[in-house]
This record gives sequence, C-alpha cells and structure tokens, in this order.
Amino acid sequence: MKKVAIGIDVGGTNTAIGVVDNEGKVLVKDSIPTPGHSNITLFIDDITNSVRELVNSVGSLNPKVEILGLGIGAPNANYYTGTIEHAPNLSFKGVIPMVKLLEENFPEMKAIAITNDANAAAIGEMIYGGAQGMKNFVVYTLGTGVGSGIIVNGDLVYGHDGFAGECGHTTIINNGRLCGCGGKGHLEAYCSAPGMKRTAFELLAKYNATKSILATKCFNEMDSKFIFEAAEAGDAIAKEVFELTGKWLGIGLANTVAHTSPEAIFLFGGPMAAGNYILRPTIESMEQHLIPIFKNKVKILPSQLKPGDAAIVGASALVYKELEKQLG
Amino acid sequence: MKKVAIGIDVGGTNTAIGVVDNEGKVLVKDSIPTPGHSNITLFIDDITNSVRELVNSVGSLNPKVEILGLGIGAPNANYYTGTIEHAPNLSFKGVIPMVKLLEENFPEMKAIAITNDANAAAIGEMIYGGAQGMKNFVVYTLGTGVGSGIIVNGDLVYGHDGFAGECGHTTIINNGRLCGCGGKGHLEAYCSAPGMKRTAFELLAKYNATKSILATKCFNEMDSKFIFEAAEAGDAIAKEVFELTGKWLGIGLANTVAHTSPEAIFLFGGPMAAGNYILRPTIESMEQHLIPIFKNKVKILPSQLKPGDAAIVGASALVYKELEKQLG
Repeated sequence: MKKVAIGIDVGGTNTAIGVVDNEGKVLVKDSIPTPGHSNITLFIDDITNSVRELVNSVGSLNPKVEILGLGIGAPNANYYTGTIEHAPNLSFKGVIPMVKLLEENFPEMKAIAITNDANAAAIGEMIYGGAQGMKNFVVYTLGTGVGSGIIVNGDLVYGHDGFAGECGHTTIINNGRLCGCGGKGHLEAYCSAPGMKRTAFELLAKYNATKSILATKCFNEMDSKFIFEAAEAGDAIAKEVFELTGKWLGIGLANTVAHTSPEAIFLFGGPMAAGNYILRPTIESMEQHLIPIFKNKVKILPSQLKPGDAAIVGASALVYKELEKQLG
Repeated sequence: MKKVAIGIDVGGTNTAIGVVDNEGKVLVKDSIPTPGHSNITLFIDDITNSVRELVNSVGSLNPKVEILGLGIGAPNANYYTGTIEHAPNLSFKGVIPMVKLLEENFPEMKAIAITNDANAAAIGEMIYGGAQGMKNFVVYTLGTGVGSGIIVNGDLVYGHDGFAGECGHTTIINNGRLCGCGGKGHLEAYCSAPGMKRTAFELLAKYNATKSILATKCFNEMDSKFIFEAAEAGDAIAKEVFELTGKWLGIGLANTVAHTSPEAIFLFGGPMAAGNYILRPTIESMEQHLIPIFKNKVKILPSQLKPGDAAIVGASALVYKELEKQLG
C-alpha cells in the first residue's frame, strides 16, 4: 500500500494543498485563496473539501493509498497548541485552533500537526531532503523574510512557547537597519529578498552608480532575481550586493553554529538561485566569525527541496515526525 | 541511604573535587594543582587518591552513603567522546581520554561523564538550582570568559560534535573588539570580566575622565569587582561600564532567545554580584532587541548556585543526567 501525507501551506495570499508520497513527491495539488473567507469555519470547510477531492483523485489513480495525516505550515503557528496566533499577514485574527478544527473534520487521520513554514522546511529536509540521516542541522529560509528551523538530536527545537527558531530576528548589526518586526539590525533586514534590494539602493547611493544596471529600476520594482541577472551580466554593484548579503548572512550562521553546533546548515529560497554569488561569501564570512573549535566543520548546503513544492512537502513531513512521536 | 555524586572541576590552576549531596550541598572537598603533573597518568592518580580520601571521610561521617558517580567539568571537554581536546589553558596537550582513564580507576561507579564548565553549570542549575522543573532554559557564565549551556526539552544541547553552547563567541558587534579566540566582536570580548575592564578604559579615554575612581588603577590591576565598588561609590564611568555591558549582553541574550525560546536565562559569575547595575540594562536591551512574539516572556534570573562551589556542584549534577539517560 502506498503511504502518503497531506501538506497544507497557509500563505497570506493562497493556501496550497498537496498529497505527498513518502519520497517527497507531490502527486496532486490544489490552491485556494486564503483571504475572501469571511470566517475561519468557511476557510476550514474549503480546505476540507480540497483535501477530500485530492484524496479521491489520488485514490482513483491508485486505490491502495493510505493517508497518514495532515501537516500544516503557517505563519505564527504554534506546534504545542495547534494554533495560529495573531499572524500579521493573515486575514483571520486572534488565535485560530487550526488543528482542533481539522481534527473535527478528519477524525480518521492518525496525525494532524501544525508549525511555521521554516520549521516545516527543516522537517521536510530531514524526512525527504538533504538532511536525511542527520540529527543536528539547521535550515534557513531566505525569501520575503528570513526564517529558520533548528533540529537538535533529531527533533525540531520548539522552545518553551512553541516559537523557537526565529534566527531571522537575531541582531547582526548593532543599531542597524529597521526590521519589519520593529527591531533594529536583524538578519532579516539584510538577508531577505527585500533586504538585498535595500543593500542595492544603499550601494547605488554610496557610489552614485549611474552606470549600474540596477540604476534602471525603481525601489518598488527591484527584486533579488533582477539583482542576480545584473550580477550575471557583470554588474559590479549587483555583485557587491551578493558579497555583502553573504557577509551578513555568515555572521548569522556563525551565531547559530555557536548555539547548536550543527552538522550542516541548509539554505532555502529565491536568493539561493544565485548559487556561488551568495554561497561563497556566506561561507567565507561564517568561517571568519567562528571560534576555532567550529572552523571548517559545518557544511553550508543548498536545500534539496524543490522550490515550487517545498512548502507543501515540508508541511506534509510533519506527519511523519508526529507519527514517530506517537510511537515514542 | 544517602546518595551523593562526586564533582570534579578541572581548571587551569587548580582542580577542585567535592562530594555533593542530592540537594547540591558540598559535604567535603579538596583541591589539587592542575599543572605540575608531568603526565596525565600522574594527574589522574592524584584525582583518584583525592576522590578515595573524600569518599572515605564522608563514609566515616555517615556509613550509609552511596556514591552514584563522577561528573567532570573541564575546558574543551567533549561529552560524546569523554575527552578533553586541545584545551589552550591546560598543561596537558592533545586529546585526553579523561572518562576512560577514570573508568579504569573507578570500575564501581555507575556513571562517569564530562562536559565543559558552562554546560555543567546549566545541568547543575537544573538538578539543584533555580531551573528545577524547567525544560527549556539557558545559563550564561560570566567570568574570565563568557560560557553558556543550553537546555532544550530537558537535555543539554551538545550539537553534532559535542561542543554546542558557545554563546560567548557569538558576534554582537560587526567588526568589533578582538576576542581571545581570534574572532572580532564576540560577546566575550565585551561582557566577560576582562571585557568590562576594556570598556572602562575606553570610557576613561573617551571622556578624559581624570576624576573617575577608575582613573587610579592601571590596566593590569583593574577588575570587575573594583568597577562595581566604584559604581557603588557613585562613579559615573563605572556606572556606564555596567550600562554598556548590559546593553551588549542583552543583544546576545536576545539572539539566544531567537534561537531556542527558553523559559529563562540564568546569569552566573562574578559580575552578577553587581545586581541591578548589570541586570536592569541587560533586560532592557534584550527586550529591545527581541521580535514582539518573545517580548516580556523570558525571565532573566541570577543563578541559584553558590559561586564558590558552583563548579563542583555543576560537575556533580552530570551524574544524575547520565543515570537518567541510562534508564532511557
């Protein structure tokens, strides 16, 4: 019998739902808009309908399918309580008991669990990706923000309140740039995709770089993909954006190594498409900031999860950790 | 029957050995010089003799004593391998198989384990101190250096290589002060006792503070106790040293919270004698640097281990964790 797990990725715009096989392959998937539901019950009903349809379509392809459970990745999700708490970019306010509501609709599921998307990415890397067999590693997700999931002794670190692993909000520059969270100098303000855009504009201003390819885009149109393309075309400003981003990211990674001494740190997200433009300076900076006992020990690796499906796949991986936990 | 554990604290100058009861009280103790042993076998022999004498003297006071095991705290100690590895401040070079050598001399002991002193302090806080009942907390030790021990889900985080929890070597100031490890801007370069001295001298230079009490001591005679006494006497420079030390420490603590979201962080060591001179600015700075989800949640507490005996007591606590592990 083929075993599959359902992954649900709740985003500010869309909620993606997929049936994932035990190798991390998405068999079928669907997407529903997250806003536009006037209340949470309607949203849960739509998720439920979508899951049932996907399960039916998988079953019609292969009748011998066993559904192991539902894993949900969502902003501000609390693993311990099964809730989404005050997520700033979701239209549902307050504390939403996601797991409880889904358990009511899916009493047949053996495991339903929720965590935030970066934690789900870390579990996905462990179950299906490059961290298979690793017991101590970290995943950093670079995108609109910077998230992270920390694995210690084979388990995700949830901390006292369920919210551990917010490495994007570690301070890397004292009194530095304003972060979206209101803090100053946080890693996310430098190494997220918007952070790279800010770096590009700082450099354009610093060098008065009228000849840079980057000088042709306004602030609201610049993105990390454009910066990468400019670097590929030989643009010096664009290359320096990656150098600086890597330098800053390396400080954050070194601080993470000092905390949990992982075997590897996986980097996931759009900016990683730039390959060595960002990887090389990141590794150089991390090594430079490490205490000798950790130098030349920690692997910095691109995530092995496919970008398009990673959120669904990561969320589905939660199911396997949950079943493992039930077995004790 | 009274159950006791032996704690051994290997320091660069002395090795302290004590018999500790199950409430963390040191019943008897001894100290032998660490250097002066021409080879490791003689050192182990001296430890062995000291332990046997201490055990006998406890036994003569109370014949119904059961010795549970030996716990060792030492610089560069690796819990996984039971070794001390290339400790810069010990006269024994290379990799020393401490646990193996002691097991040969004490085959009757149920548990013999080693870790570094800050990790031992964290386990001591959990077994005997203020962290009893806590599952997620961190201990920072402030002294000649800054060490840390991180507890996640009731277990110490050792990481992939056994050396996790080096928060003193996280970067808090980009391109900052030279650290003893060769790095730049590490927390230890700011918040250790020598770091406070460096801050005092920077401030004396900055303000040309000829009237400060601190202006009367040369660099090699200044210590954190003198700075505290000057602050108590109303010295503005000394007070600013504590403000800045707290500000920097708060950045480090906030970064730790972002990683593991602990219930509490315990602060241990000489500078903590200054009480609110350092605690208040530390808490203020930590709160300022936290992402909102963690604000006003994490307790910053003075360690409940007695300064004089803490190293022995912390080391002895390892025995209880080891026995717990053996029970599965």
